[in-house]
Amino acid sequence: MMGYRGKTREVLEKLGASIGCRIRLSTKDNVFIEGILMPKHEFSSPEIIVIKLDNGYNIGISIDRVVKIELVMCRSIPSPPKTIMEKIGGLPITKILGCGGTIASKVEYETGAVKPVMEPSELLELVPELKGLANYEMEVVFNILSEDMTPSHWEVIAHRVYNAIISGVDGIVITHGTDTMSYTAAALAFALRNLPMPISIVGAQRSSDRPSTDAALNLFAAVLTTLKAPFGEVVVVMHATSSDTEAYVHRGVKVRKMHSSRRDAFQSINDIPLAKVDLIKREFILINNRFIGRAKNRSDVIAQIGFDDKVALVKAYPGFQKEIIDFLVDKEFHGIVIEGTGLGHIGSYVIDSIKRAIEHEIPVVMTTQTLFGRVNMNVYTTGRKLLEIGVIPGEDMLPETAYVKLSWILKQTRNLSEVRKMMLTNYVNEFNPTLREEHFPIWVRT
Amino acid sequence: MMGYRGKTREVLEKLGASIGCRIRLSTKDNVFIEGILMPKHEFSSPEIIVIKLDNGYNIGISIDRVVKIELVMCRSIPSPPKTIMEKIGGLPITKILGCGGTIASKVEYETGAVKPVMEPSELLELVPELKGLANYEMEVVFNILSEDMTPSHWEVIAHRVYNAIISGVDGIVITHGTDTMSYTAAALAFALRNLPMPISIVGAQRSSDRPSTDAALNLFAAVLTTLKAPFGEVVVVMHATSSDTEAYVHRGVKVRKMHSSRRDAFQSINDIPLAKVDLIKREFILINNRFIGRAKNRSDVIAQIGFDDKVALVKAYPGFQKEIIDFLVDKEFHGIVIEGTGLGHIGSYVIDSIKRAIEHEIPVVMTTQTLFGRVNMNVYTTGRKLLEIGVIPGEDMLPETAYVKLSWILKQTRNLSEVRKMMLTNYVNEFNPTLREEHFPIWVRT
Repeated sequence: MMGYRGKTREVLEKLGASIGCRIRLSTKDNVFIEGILMPKHEFSSPEIIVIKLDNGYNIGISIDRVVKIELVMCRSIPSPPKTIMEKIGGLPITKILGCGGTIASKVEYETGAVKPVMEPSELLELVPELKGLANYEMEVVFNILSEDMTPSHWEVIAHRVYNAIISGVDGIVITHGTDTMSYTAAALAFALRNLPMPISIVGAQRSSDRPSTDAALNLFAAVLTTLKAPFGEVVVVMHATSSDTEAYVHRGVKVRKMHSSRRDAFQSINDIPLAKVDLIKREFILINNRFIGRAKNRSDVIAQIGFDDKVALVKAYPGFQKEIIDFLVDKEFHGIVIEGTGLGHIGSYVIDSIKRAIEHEIPVVMTTQTLFGRVNMNVYTTGRKLLEIGVIPGEDMLPETAYVKLSWILKQTRNLSEVRKMMLTNYVNEFNPTLREEHFPIWVRT
Repeated sequence: MMGYRGKTREVLEKLGASIGCRIRLSTKDNVFIEGILMPKHEFSSPEIIVIKLDNGYNIGISIDRVVKIELVMCRSIPSPPKTIMEKIGGLPITKILGCGGTIASKVEYETGAVKPVMEPSELLELVPELKGLANYEMEVVFNILSEDMTPSHWEVIAHRVYNAIISGVDGIVITHGTDTMSYTAAALAFALRNLPMPISIVGAQRSSDRPSTDAALNLFAAVLTTLKAPFGEVVVVMHATSSDTEAYVHRGVKVRKMHSSRRDAFQSINDIPLAKVDLIKREFILINNRFIGRAKNRSDVIAQIGFDDKVALVKAYPGFQKEIIDFLVDKEFHGIVIEGTGLGHIGSYVIDSIKRAIEHEIPVVMTTQTLFGRVNMNVYTTGRKLLEIGVIPGEDMLPETAYVKLSWILKQTRNLSEVRKMMLTNYVNEFNPTLREEHFPIWVRT
């Protein structure tokens, strides 16, 4: 019950609601509100309940105004109705946290559309391969579309992962929609460090009831990875090719969805995958020696959970309208990540607007839309001018990772020089100091 | 002298200034203005001179207010001081249009920075390979940094290319900075169709005075392509690998800069290159049979030159703030391209803002940040909702190509159903109807 105390806490506990649960309430003045119960800052008024609405906004309601409150959906902490699939003596326990997505979805036959579902028993029926590998605990965190994930959702997932680690499980797998899976992976990687085990995030590009589904094998590879891998990193586990022979284990801060529909859509950028899983021999194979090892004790976990939702990720293009930057400054955004061109550029006519942002204590980070390669703002005039006014170079980070990192940093400090120092710190291998030939794909199959 | 008439035209002609020239003027009320002379709409007042300032904005000045006017830089039409490099009997004429960039740049030894230069003689001294291949005509269009290109610059370049075609040259090569080269390529591809020859756009990732420069070989391949290729398309010609053995000829609407610094940064997305140039044997080799052939006559060229600069390219991300869309609507933008997630999604809480945009007659086009693959908005709920409210699916177009295409369409029509019809028309193979295994790279070198 993070942040809740006094009467509010009593009411929520009586209801059986915990952070991340969906609740519905009505107030004295006949306002009806439904949404997800969010964590609260320690310093906010004790009578306030914070709810994330479906439109993405958080709202604070005083418990004194509430006349009716109900629990809509909650299968989780403090007393989650766990589904223990199989209890075989001596096997490790793996927690599966359901966060929606195609890996747990079905075709609605009336409309032909794919709809997310998340009945634990249904999910595990689909994957007989998982038997004998571990004992499983299922917990549904959300049942939302991956495009509806927000920084607040990352917070909820991070808290659930943290709780799972502390609770003593041996492996953690998160099922997630693929659209924004890499953003969530980066978020968890920054928020939870010094991990005693890898956290596997897994999805499916084909829904689990289709014959061509990749759900079962991806889930198998994700469980194997969380149990067997020598590293303590947040990883994305997905098909390595379009055939069912191998899965890759990608570092969460270096992975990107690179195809709208292929099963091997996820690929490492400016890095090679940490490992692969041979899906025929059912073997975990380490292929990258640059990794963060597992922490010795569960209590070693560093949890800095919190994301600022007033960060914008802005793409540069010829004719980019500088009033877009002016607008973000006027609206008091807390940070801006630019997806620039080439070595980290944007039209020089935009520099004045960026300067104004920095003068307003808004950090501006430069990344590149080439995705591959490193920002280097010392080469050309525009880059040097941007450095001079205080733009922070994003090294070889993906624009998406830089966006998540800035959002994470800004929840800890708004001090510009602190933000700069943290942006330039390599926390979880989000920077790769040595880019080599092997980090660039072969583009034309001959 | 597009759009200029009467006294204004007389003054400009007397000055020797043409569209794209840099001019400087002062007014009765002591305003000093310097910038690039722009084309003018036929329906604007005859006394107005339109100048693009260095900050990217266009300004209209009445000739009656001008007390002094000077030509700063202009080496072009109507009477360009051409540099004919070599006149060898019987060889075809190739026009080289200089638009800035590293291919024509030098290190400033005082600061260590690379600065663009564009002396035709200097450029051609660097490339002895070009001798014997053609006779060359050099024309400097701009000397600007590639990140400073805007839709107005595309118009100027397109007019110069059109003039060159009509003037009777046998080949056209555009030297350009690499940061935004693919945007310009797409712009020319839409603006100039039914081409009697390929238009080669070429750049360098290493400046021409460095030993590792790719400038010479790229320029050689670009000239060979414009003279030899069987197609009449706008193409980008750049190194195929990091060694000096091959260059690729990429379709302008399907190419993207995929690395911030490598020489083989440019790669075709959702397509294979049209051709390659063997840099050892000096041979042009066609590798893609899906192309638009050369038009028989120069007069067959379809020139629809014009780009709307009130189009925004907006990237979706978790927590995307819908007020960014609201702002673009309030500011009366003419069109919005969304770089969505997966099959073409954005948070469902943004749908209302997008609906409002469309209700304001602002077309909204959906593309995908995966870059590879096709948008398919019939699969998931969010996609179907977006289709229902009138979002136009961008097929397998790059977000950047969709941005250029929408900017081009909006200069011709603002009627929503016309815009939709044109966006869904495959003008120059910007859609690839059949995506196959060969269109996806090999991501891990083993």
